[in-house]
Amino acid sequence: MFAENLSIRDGVLYFAGHNTVSLAAQYGTPLYLMDETRIRQNCRMYREAMRASFGADALPLYASKAASFKRIYEIMREENMCVDVVSAGEIHTAALAGFPMENVYFHGNNKTNAEIAYAMEAGVGCFVADNREELEAISRIAGARGIVQRVMLRLTPGIDPHTYEAVATGKVDSKFGVAIETGQAEALFRVAAALPNLALEGFHCHVGSQVFDEDVFERSSDIMLEFIARLRGSYGFATKLLDLGGGYGVQYVDSDGAADIPARIAELAASMRRKAAALDMPLPAVLLEPGRSIVADAGLTLYTVGAVKHITGYKNYVSVDGGMTDNPRYALYQSAYTVCAAGHMDKPAAMRCDVVGRCCESGDIIQPDVALPELRRGDILAVCTTGAYNYSMASNYNRVPRPAVVMLTPEGSAVAVRRETMEQLTENDV
Amino acid sequence: MFAENLSIRDGVLYFAGHNTVSLAAQYGTPLYLMDETRIRQNCRMYREAMRASFGADALPLYASKAASFKRIYEIMREENMCVDVVSAGEIHTAALAGFPMENVYFHGNNKTNAEIAYAMEAGVGCFVADNREELEAISRIAGARGIVQRVMLRLTPGIDPHTYEAVATGKVDSKFGVAIETGQAEALFRVAAALPNLALEGFHCHVGSQVFDEDVFERSSDIMLEFIARLRGSYGFATKLLDLGGGYGVQYVDSDGAADIPARIAELAASMRRKAAALDMPLPAVLLEPGRSIVADAGLTLYTVGAVKHITGYKNYVSVDGGMTDNPRYALYQSAYTVCAAGHMDKPAAMRCDVVGRCCESGDIIQPDVALPELRRGDILAVCTTGAYNYSMASNYNRVPRPAVVMLTPEGSAVAVRRETMEQLTENDV
Repeated sequence: MFAENLSIRDGVLYFAGHNTVSLAAQYGTPLYLMDETRIRQNCRMYREAMRASFGADALPLYASKAASFKRIYEIMREENMCVDVVSAGEIHTAALAGFPMENVYFHGNNKTNAEIAYAMEAGVGCFVADNREELEAISRIAGARGIVQRVMLRLTPGIDPHTYEAVATGKVDSKFGVAIETGQAEALFRVAAALPNLALEGFHCHVGSQVFDEDVFERSSDIMLEFIARLRGSYGFATKLLDLGGGYGVQYVDSDGAADIPARIAELAASMRRKAAALDMPLPAVLLEPGRSIVADAGLTLYTVGAVKHITGYKNYVSVDGGMTDNPRYALYQSAYTVCAAGHMDKPAAMRCDVVGRCCESGDIIQPDVALPELRRGDILAVCTTGAYNYSMASNYNRVPRPAVVMLTPEGSAVAVRRETMEQLTENDV
Repeated sequence: MFAENLSIRDGVLYFAGHNTVSLAAQYGTPLYLMDETRIRQNCRMYREAMRASFGADALPLYASKAASFKRIYEIMREENMCVDVVSAGEIHTAALAGFPMENVYFHGNNKTNAEIAYAMEAGVGCFVADNREELEAISRIAGARGIVQRVMLRLTPGIDPHTYEAVATGKVDSKFGVAIETGQAEALFRVAAALPNLALEGFHCHVGSQVFDEDVFERSSDIMLEFIARLRGSYGFATKLLDLGGGYGVQYVDSDGAADIPARIAELAASMRRKAAALDMPLPAVLLEPGRSIVADAGLTLYTVGAVKHITGYKNYVSVDGGMTDNPRYALYQSAYTVCAAGHMDKPAAMRCDVVGRCCESGDIIQPDVALPELRRGDILAVCTTGAYNYSMASNYNRVPRPAVVMLTPEGSAVAVRRETMEQLTENDV
C-alpha cells in the first residue's frame, strides 16, 4: 500500500491497525476515520525538522482549516503546535478544546469587525492582517479595548507555484495580501507602523497548496528576505517573524510521489541562511503552516456501495452512500484519490468504473476511472487520504447529514464528531 | 433591472419591494433573501401552464433539492404543488412542514435501505427507482411492511442537453437510471413488473439543468413515448405516468435571456400529443419537476464589503463576508451572477473587479470581472438570482456559520431559517 498506515489482512483493508469493514459495521457509513497516531507523527516530524533546521524559535502552525473540530485542537495542544485559524468559528472550536490562545494566528482576507472583536476577546496571539481596511479596524478595536495587538502583514511575493489555479495564492494577482512588486506592501508596512494599537512583528506569505516544485519556498523566501532587508535599511525595522505559509504536497495516488519534508525544510533553511548572510542581516524566526500534510494521510473515508451499473458499450458506475457532500474535492478541483474495495483487497480488478456519490447531480463524482473488483450492494469502499479538506468542506446538499468522524488509536476507536441527525438538519428552520 | 422583483429607489436596491440595505442592517450579513410572492407566482405559472397544455392530470413537482427548508414545503403545500425529494433529510423536512406525503416523489441514484424504510414509514407516495438493486430493496422492504409501493423507473433517453457537463444527466452514459438505447431499460421494466410488492406506474427521465435549447424536452419525450409504446405492444403495459424531469433555464445575467416557460410547455404538449397520436396510444399523465425555475429568481444574497484592493497593473478585488460557503456555484461551475452595489445603484461603474469571498482559498470567487462603483468597507453588495442551489449547497468550510434565510412578503419580512450560531458549529464535537 502507498501509505504506512494502510495494510491488508485476510483480504480486508486495515487502517491505523483497525479493520475498516468492522468499523463500517460499528459506526455506519459514510464514515470519516482519522489516525491519531499519524497526526501526531506528522506534527513531530514538522516540529523536529524545524527545530533541527531553523533552531528553537521556529514554529510550526497547524493550518486548522484543513480539518477543524475540537479533538484536533486538543491533539495540537498536546503536541505543542501553534495553530492558524481563519474565522471566529475556528477560534471558538480551538477555545472549546482549551487551546492556548496566545499560540493562535488569525488569518483570512476578510475579517469582519465582529470577528476581530471576538478574536481579541478570546485572546488570540497574533493577527495576520490582509489589507489596509483590516489593519485600521484591528487598531481601532484594539484601541477601544486598551490593548496593543500583535500583527503580521500578509504579502504576495509574486510566485506562481504551478499548482491548481484555485489554490495558487502567492501570485501578485491574488485576493490575499498586498504585493511586494507593486510597492503596495511597503505602503501597507508604513500604515501598520503608524497605527497606534498594533505591534508589527513580521510578514507572512503563502504561495499555494499541494506544492511539489523543488524551489517554490526558496524563491518566495528570497523575495521576502529582500523585502525585510529593504525595510531594515530604509526604516530600521527589525522583523521578528517570517511566516512562509504552508503547502507541501501530500500523496493522494501512487503517481504523486512522496515529498521528503524534513529534507526540504533543511534545504529551505540552508537557502534562507545563505540569503540572510548575503543581505547581512539575521534570519527572523521562521513559521511554517502545514495543514494538509498534517492530516491528509491520517484520514480515510468509508462508504457502502448501493448500485453497480454496467452500461453496455459505455461505462461502469459504482454508487456510494456519500459523495460531494462529504468530499467535494473532485467536483471542485478534479482531485485524484485512491479507492479500494475494503472487503475484497485480495480480489483482482474486474472493471474500470466511476465511483459516484448519491447526490442528484452528475458532477457528484468521488473518482472517475477506478479499477475495482466486482462489487455488490452492501460492499464497503474506502477512499484514502481524506483527512484534509473533506470533513471541513462537507455540506448538507440534498439534505444529507454529515458523517461522523471516528478517531483511531492503537487502543481503540472513539467518535470525535458525532454523525448529524435528521433533527439537526432542521434545527434552524422556523 | 432584469428581474421584475428588483427595483431602485433613491439609489438603493429594492428586492420584492423591500430596501435591501435596511434588511442587511436589520438581519446582518451574509443574508439570503427569498421573495415569497415570486415563489408562488412561479408555482402558479407552472400549474396553470401544465393544466392548460396537458389537462387536469398533469402534475408540477417542485424539485426541492434546489432549496429545501421547512417554509418552502409549507408554501408548496399551500400552492398545491407536488414535490420531489432526494433523501431522508428532505422527507423529514417536508414532513415537519405538514406536507402531504402522498404527493412526494422520492428520487436519487442511491437510496439506502435505511432511507427506503424511512420513506415508507413516512408514507411517501411514489419512489422513482434508479436501478435493479434499489428496485429489489424497495420490493423487499415493502413486502416486510405488507404494502405495495408505487414506483416509477428512471430511464436515460440518450439526450445530451448541451448544458454544463456537471448537470447534464440525460445521456446514456450517466450515473442515473438505465438506458433505453442499450436495452437495459426494458430489462429493468421486466424486473419491476415481476417483483411482488411494487406497483409500476410509469417512467421518469431528466435531461439536465439550465436547459435553453428549444427541442430538448421534445426529443426526450419522443424517445420516452416510443419506449412506452413498445412496452404497450410487447407486454400490454399501460403507462400511467410520464415524468420528464426539470431543467428549464433561468436568467442569471442579462445575456442569458428569459425562457417563456408557458409557451415552451404548450409546444411540448403539442409535440407529445402528435407523437402519441402517431404511436396510436393515449398520452400518460405528464409530470414536470421544476426546481431552479421555481426559486432561483426569488432569491438574492446580501454581503458586506470588507476590503477593496486595486493591485497596480493587475486587477481589482472586492472581498465580501461570505463566499463559496454560502454560494459554491462559481467555484463548482463557474456560474454567472449579476452583482450590484445595493446602496449605490445611482453611481456609475468605476472599476472592474473580482468579487471574492472570505474563505482562505483562491478559488473562493463569487463572480469575476464585475463592473461596480467605488466601494468601501461596510458597503452592501447584492448578488441576484441566488434562490436555487445556494442555501441548499452551503457548507461550514472555514467554520463559517451558514447565513439566515429571510422570507419577504408584501406585508413584511420574517426569518425562515435562523443564522447558524458558533455553538451549533461544535454541537457534534466530542
